[in-house]
Amino acid sequence: MKTADPELMRAINRYHVIDTIRRDGPIARVEIAARTDLSPASVSAITAQLMEEGLIDIHHVAPGGDAVRGRPRVLLGLNPAAYTVVGVKLTAFRIGIAVTDARGGSLSSLVLPIRVARQSPEVVADLVEDGVRRCVADAGLAMDRISGVGVGLPGVIDGIDGVSHWSPVLGGTPAPFAAAVSRRLGVPVLLENDANLVAVAEHWFGLGRDQTAFAVVTVENTIGLGLIVDGKLYRGAHGIGPALGHTRLVPGGLPCRCGLRGCLDAYASDWGLLRMAEEAGLLPQGDDAPDRIEGLVQRALAGEVAAAALFRGAGQAIGIAVSNLVNLLNPPRVILTGEGLRAGPLLREPLLEAVAENMLPTLKDGTEILFHSWGDEMWARGAATIMLRRIYEAPWNATT
Amino acid sequence: MKTADPELMRAINRYHVIDTIRRDGPIARVEIAARTDLSPASVSAITAQLMEEGLIDIHHVAPGGDAVRGRPRVLLGLNPAAYTVVGVKLTAFRIGIAVTDARGGSLSSLVLPIRVARQSPEVVADLVEDGVRRCVADAGLAMDRISGVGVGLPGVIDGIDGVSHWSPVLGGTPAPFAAAVSRRLGVPVLLENDANLVAVAEHWFGLGRDQTAFAVVTVENTIGLGLIVDGKLYRGAHGIGPALGHTRLVPGGLPCRCGLRGCLDAYASDWGLLRMAEEAGLLPQGDDAPDRIEGLVQRALAGEVAAAALFRGAGQAIGIAVSNLVNLLNPPRVILTGEGLRAGPLLREPLLEAVAENMLPTLKDGTEILFHSWGDEMWARGAATIMLRRIYEAPWNATT
Repeated sequence: MKTADPELMRAINRYHVIDTIRRDGPIARVEIAARTDLSPASVSAITAQLMEEGLIDIHHVAPGGDAVRGRPRVLLGLNPAAYTVVGVKLTAFRIGIAVTDARGGSLSSLVLPIRVARQSPEVVADLVEDGVRRCVADAGLAMDRISGVGVGLPGVIDGIDGVSHWSPVLGGTPAPFAAAVSRRLGVPVLLENDANLVAVAEHWFGLGRDQTAFAVVTVENTIGLGLIVDGKLYRGAHGIGPALGHTRLVPGGLPCRCGLRGCLDAYASDWGLLRMAEEAGLLPQGDDAPDRIEGLVQRALAGEVAAAALFRGAGQAIGIAVSNLVNLLNPPRVILTGEGLRAGPLLREPLLEAVAENMLPTLKDGTEILFHSWGDEMWARGAATIMLRRIYEAPWNATT
Repeated sequence: MKTADPELMRAINRYHVIDTIRRDGPIARVEIAARTDLSPASVSAITAQLMEEGLIDIHHVAPGGDAVRGRPRVLLGLNPAAYTVVGVKLTAFRIGIAVTDARGGSLSSLVLPIRVARQSPEVVADLVEDGVRRCVADAGLAMDRISGVGVGLPGVIDGIDGVSHWSPVLGGTPAPFAAAVSRRLGVPVLLENDANLVAVAEHWFGLGRDQTAFAVVTVENTIGLGLIVDGKLYRGAHGIGPALGHTRLVPGGLPCRCGLRGCLDAYASDWGLLRMAEEAGLLPQGDDAPDRIEGLVQRALAGEVAAAALFRGAGQAIGIAVSNLVNLLNPPRVILTGEGLRAGPLLREPLLEAVAENMLPTLKDGTEILFHSWGDEMWARGAATIMLRRIYEAPWNATT
């Protein structure tokens, strides 16, 4: 945090007012003052300014809300029209796009069923450009109404400089993908690891809304991790977020696509499940169809013993990784989400058993393990939210 | 962070000045202004106030230091006499105590060779009281000159409320140990996990002095972890810090004293090494002498094959855990320290090989792995520093 001057002081108080309205709105000014410890006069001055800028609006006027003076009670909320942003989610098999308002509400959405991993980053940027332009047009908007685009994808992503260092979607050569998309669309673009994006979405709209610290584990083509620490997205060196999929489950174990052996991803991600199913002769080798994992889940749910064993094993592996995460960092809440949970109790029950078996007994009371099945809107909202979050960033968190 | 007012603004700027003097001092006012972005007038006002309060003093006056105007160059430093604090380190076999000044300089120190783990928390608190009173008297001081006591110990420690939830030293029943010692000595007492304490010491005086994010792995009777994130000590739920020793190295593996199986501690801590040496018939069972591990190290260094294999295995296990930590959180720097490194290259070489083998290639450039052999003063300074740090805490980090 930089040294303080009156400008920073104003920015801090303004942030607290916006953040309270975002989290608890629609909300009356008197409540904002109570929750922020600001004086009613300060709150009035700040909200008047925010209203003039169009960031907030009057959500609701309740007559007679003020019991003492009989004045109507004015409830303030984020103005959904203040910003329009676009969220993009890249996976191995598709590009998901959504245009959202400043409250994360969807204005239009689009899924391009493209095998992204077969294409070069430049081609993928072209496809993202086409999809975004189409989705913005579908929302009845022009590109100049868009404040920015957030792009989420799995892998080792520098979220500050917008570079993909290693991703199952964009490959192993460092790709300055945020700049590539920004150049094409003429708007600011943020690139973020997809688990980070879900963590931000949970913080803004989901099970982390009232939390300042929690972990999100995303179970998908890879096992991802997002961490909110002190209300802020955790980043390691070079802006790279945390990751769970390449911690060691079995030292010297199964080979992983990252080049290492025994990674969690090799045992529990969609990618790893397909490899193990091939090895066990449950699936033909090398077929890369997008619906392969769905077929395997259906066979497991229908009672096919060998298929079910794979998902139980994956659940156990994820459970061990989650208990490691708790024993290591002791986050107050762990939220599990992602398509990989589609196998339901088949995966969830051994997962919770493995957590119970491997978590330090003394930490059990302090940790909640929650499952959150978002629909597709998680990714759209999440990707859009990383751009909204930048716009509303706390002044002491600003990374620029 | 709370909302801002002029008082907070002053506190922020005052903190930055003190922190710059602590980190870079002795330092001239003009340099403080340059590094903090504060105006020379603000720096002068703040340093005058700090000098009046006795927190800083003139360390050195260099005649002719100001080349243009020929005035002497005044260098400011933390005033060592501003505060006197006591650091206490509890291990299974001894109580280490040091009285230090406000720069962490030792005024007196004392080691009580007591098998702490055999005693109840109340008896341990009595022994700590006796030791602290003696050590303070040795420094020629009265207790009323002591601003506070920092106590470090291994285990699951709530550093905010000062409660030991589980510790090889104080047992498995929650013990409000900070309050127990504070009641006896009549001064504020902070309790902290010992790896956290080393992290703070590295941040203030060691290899983390110019860093805002790093990890410290302590290799001792247990394998500990301290994390500095955004310049602040990481804490999980209930004020409990991170821990490495009870993450899974081998699912379902060797039993650990925590009640789980396959923990890193069972393979790589002094405790685990002794258990494995007993199992292998290298040591008699159940002998609990404090110098047992030293004897085993000497035998390994003298070339005894079976003993050397144990330390190589421990090195490999710690290396896997360090690579997991990097793959998971990607800290820019990992500092390894602690008595467990006493086996030297025998442990260090397989450790570094395992790190190289298990770290994601794309993260290698961003991560420094450093070894830091502190003497006994690490613990003393570390424990004292957790109290100094509270005194100089950044206003936006204040936990009370």
